[in-house]
Amino acid sequence: MAVPLAPWKQLLVNSLESNANLKHSTYFQLATIGLNGRPSNRTVVFRGFEEDSNKILINTDGRSCKVEEIKRSPFGEICWYFTDSWEQYRISGSLDVIDGSNRDRLKLLQREKAWFTSSPRSRQQYLGPTPGLPCILEGPNQELSLDPSTGPVAAFCLLILDPDQVDYLNLKSNERLAFNIENNDNGGRCWDSKKINP
Amino acid sequence: MAVPLAPWKQLLVNSLESNANLKHSTYFQLATIGLNGRPSNRTVVFRGFEEDSNKILINTDGRSCKVEEIKRSPFGEICWYFTDSWEQYRISGSLDVIDGSNRDRLKLLQREKAWFTSSPRSRQQYLGPTPGLPCILEGPNQELSLDPSTGPVAAFCLLILDPDQVDYLNLKSNERLAFNIENNDNGGRCWDSKKINP
Repeated sequence: MAVPLAPWKQLLVNSLESNANLKHSTYFQLATIGLNGRPSNRTVVFRGFEEDSNKILINTDGRSCKVEEIKRSPFGEICWYFTDSWEQYRISGSLDVIDGSNRDRLKLLQREKAWFTSSPRSRQQYLGPTPGLPCILEGPNQELSLDPSTGPVAAFCLLILDPDQVDYLNLKSNERLAFNIENNDNGGRCWDSKKINP
Repeated sequence: MAVPLAPWKQLLVNSLESNANLKHSTYFQLATIGLNGRPSNRTVVFRGFEEDSNKILINTDGRSCKVEEIKRSPFGEICWYFTDSWEQYRISGSLDVIDGSNRDRLKLLQREKAWFTSSPRSRQQYLGPTPGLPCILEGPNQELSLDPSTGPVAAFCLLILDPDQVDYLNLKSNERLAFNIENNDNGGRCWDSKKINP
């Protein structure tokens, strides 16, 4: 069932606007559960929201550890700190991995759209050697050419985080808000919010 | 057994120096395992290294969720992104919680030192209401006074992360290094490093 647009989404859009002058304002840290059961944490780039939804899009290399981790334990928490406005969003939810083998046509189209929205330089990365493996090439990487009209390569993967809990903290005003998805009486779901101690 | 000073430590000290002009360069994201088994992630402040070691110090409120989480699952991964130099450190290790009930006198002294090294404003936080609980006070917080010579209050907690794995990524040079603690033949431990694909 559809989830209404979340009250934290407008806050987040405002933070993005007020920090837009900083390149790193679209970077956040995504925590997952590692294959050894320990926490795993890395910087990724915000690629926008899924159309008409609260879901957050992230591009990644299907050969990176996080994809294996998410297939095993499909939950993540984003920690997004805006260095100019001193605001933090902790966004917890479930993660969906969309690679070329996905059987859902709409999801494949979403992955294709994410690919063509990326810059040529971003796309180029997915042609490189497997991330995290020992580096065997010495010297500068070979430049592999990629036609701009070519669709997503095998390694290209779209991650979609579907938030069910958001913790917002403003370090300037010292205000903190907790947003949670709740089931309502008529079987639908809605976002509840409350002020909590910072 | 003592672990020799880590080869990644000098790199990290250099990054701190080259980003020192930015207030947020001492902020990083610490991921832990939540009580529900999902990842948990928040921004915390680097409070230096433990003397003559590679261990990383973090101050926290003993009433915050992360302390309970760490007592249940004592592992964490720091993700530390330097926005000026485009460097990322992922630092994984075990976490030790030091509160006022600790039986180790040296650890209690460490906690006391961390308290007195904090600014009066930082110390003040630990007198506030329990973090994360619903906010019941309206209007400005009551200012509780704290004598500068007063030792750590009950809520003040020191976290110590003992790293055993570090992943360094430089987005300008596109270089990535993996550092791991290895057991050597004579029963000691040493840091190994290798170049890996970004």
